[in-house]
Amino acid sequence: MLEEIREQPAVLERTIGAEREKIGRLGTFLRGREIDLIVLVARGSSDNAAQFGRYLLEVTTGIPVSLSAPSVFTLYNSKLDLKRALVVGVSQSGEGTDINTVLTTAKESGAYTLGITNEAESTMASIVDEVLLIHAGRERSVAATKTYTGQILHFYLLAQALGAEGLEIETIPSLTSHALDREAVVRDLVDRYTFMENCVVVGRGMNYGNAYELALKLMETCYVVAERFSTADFFHGPLAIVERRFPVIMFAPDGKTTTSSLDLLSDLERLHADCLSITNDESIATASPRSIMMPSMPEILTPIPFIVPAQLFAAYLSAAKGIDADAPRSLSKVTKTV
Amino acid sequence: MLEEIREQPAVLERTIGAEREKIGRLGTFLRGREIDLIVLVARGSSDNAAQFGRYLLEVTTGIPVSLSAPSVFTLYNSKLDLKRALVVGVSQSGEGTDINTVLTTAKESGAYTLGITNEAESTMASIVDEVLLIHAGRERSVAATKTYTGQILHFYLLAQALGAEGLEIETIPSLTSHALDREAVVRDLVDRYTFMENCVVVGRGMNYGNAYELALKLMETCYVVAERFSTADFFHGPLAIVERRFPVIMFAPDGKTTTSSLDLLSDLERLHADCLSITNDESIATASPRSIMMPSMPEILTPIPFIVPAQLFAAYLSAAKGIDADAPRSLSKVTKTV
Repeated sequence: MLEEIREQPAVLERTIGAEREKIGRLGTFLRGREIDLIVLVARGSSDNAAQFGRYLLEVTTGIPVSLSAPSVFTLYNSKLDLKRALVVGVSQSGEGTDINTVLTTAKESGAYTLGITNEAESTMASIVDEVLLIHAGRERSVAATKTYTGQILHFYLLAQALGAEGLEIETIPSLTSHALDREAVVRDLVDRYTFMENCVVVGRGMNYGNAYELALKLMETCYVVAERFSTADFFHGPLAIVERRFPVIMFAPDGKTTTSSLDLLSDLERLHADCLSITNDESIATASPRSIMMPSMPEILTPIPFIVPAQLFAAYLSAAKGIDADAPRSLSKVTKTV
Repeated sequence: MLEEIREQPAVLERTIGAEREKIGRLGTFLRGREIDLIVLVARGSSDNAAQFGRYLLEVTTGIPVSLSAPSVFTLYNSKLDLKRALVVGVSQSGEGTDINTVLTTAKESGAYTLGITNEAESTMASIVDEVLLIHAGRERSVAATKTYTGQILHFYLLAQALGAEGLEIETIPSLTSHALDREAVVRDLVDRYTFMENCVVVGRGMNYGNAYELALKLMETCYVVAERFSTADFFHGPLAIVERRFPVIMFAPDGKTTTSSLDLLSDLERLHADCLSITNDESIATASPRSIMMPSMPEILTPIPFIVPAQLFAAYLSAAKGIDADAPRSLSKVTKTV
């Protein structure tokens, strides 16, 4: 898992280089169609990447996005009217049975379909109209890391293809390299969390998917009961579980979410709760009992660099707890639910 | 909270009677418009009701549904193209600032807007094109119960207005009365869970929203760190947190989700985990270490009756833990996030 985390800048660089031309062509094609809905179909880590994709695509293109509920198709056999929709499947392996069923049904309903996957020869790749390939090489750890950031990268490329402007996508690999410089800081920090059994991870907007992703990593590789919420939803009930020393981990970049991050920190201080912020905002770092300080960057580009210290945190905590992060109990790499 | 739980059959009966005529008119109007997307906007318990609404509306009308991310509008100030959309705000109080901002923006973008609320004089009611009113009287407990089921009821009425056939909505109040007959069973069962600190609640399809709702009730009123998952997503990672005696609570009605419920029960048995099923399927009750047996009914009508024993469970567990369910620490009834 650690090795795969460290491979990420190279994977991102390689993917941008290899896919740029195809994305350019796709852009010309998509801008000629009338698309009034984007549907994202995914499960697990891929679904967390899709949560980010939802925010990015709505904010940068103005096209409404729906995160698909696969059982509508697979259990209830419904047909949705998707003739003006772009339907995007996201799966590391490309073998999620339910995801592929949704893509097949959507195509029959007249949707244009894309697949974001790490496997060029997968079932998903054979179903969709166009494949956006992550060039990650094989991912050996059950816990997805380099394919998660590869999926996020493809959402930037897709947003650009749909007309989003000003995304400095080419800077992402080097921002990700800088994020890896935090490895020693994270390793030292982890010791304190060795006996953590529960926690809450929060994030909002562009980093909402990251909150889900870190929580999933903590569940998979550390067996921590990790709740995940949008910083905003957290005030609607879940805040009641927070007591003295309850651990909260927050993605809190400098940007549109700064005020709500500071509001939450102030509540957590009042409750004597614990908080670790992943941030590049001085005021948030000052208000947080602990923080991992990240470099300055546009908020919209934070999701990939900001997940890196979180991945490292999960990998080192897993080791601290004596767990094999690459082969967690009860899990397999490809999950074929229907 | 207990009193408000017990009021539910009467609230449902009253709401059906009072709103039927308006819904009829709305149906005629909506079927004359070209609606190719439904957007649901909500937070907290209302968002859990919307999760159900999503499945119901997609399965019965074939119109794609998106659960809105309010921050796209409130933080990132985006305008989405919603001219052929029906946008439905859901809020007990009608005073959620972010929900109301989304409704205002959506209306400006050409969407037709509806508000499902318990407050006829609320800000939401003054914004939307049409109000669907829950006739619940004032809800005093911070934990929403009768307004949650009232919101679900309105999704059935809305589905019917959009052309869904065969929904036996008029049977819901009496099914809910029968569900209340389980009160003594639930009360006796709760004792065993007095010291429960973590748990996972699962459900799928029509009962996915209920899984979120019970988890939220357990967080709010019992301070239990309650995770919530779709029965399908649970296999994508979170299963790793389950160990010997780990408590799982499952909504498992007889219907399309029976097979995946049985699959999960078989995994949980292998892991020596604990499971309480709320079910009306004999095979699931047999395979569950414990169950709350519900009456036979069509799967599509299970969400309201099935949440009732879950609400009772939270209310009695809260009492067993010595907590005041009506006024949980750190929470207020109206949450005004932006």
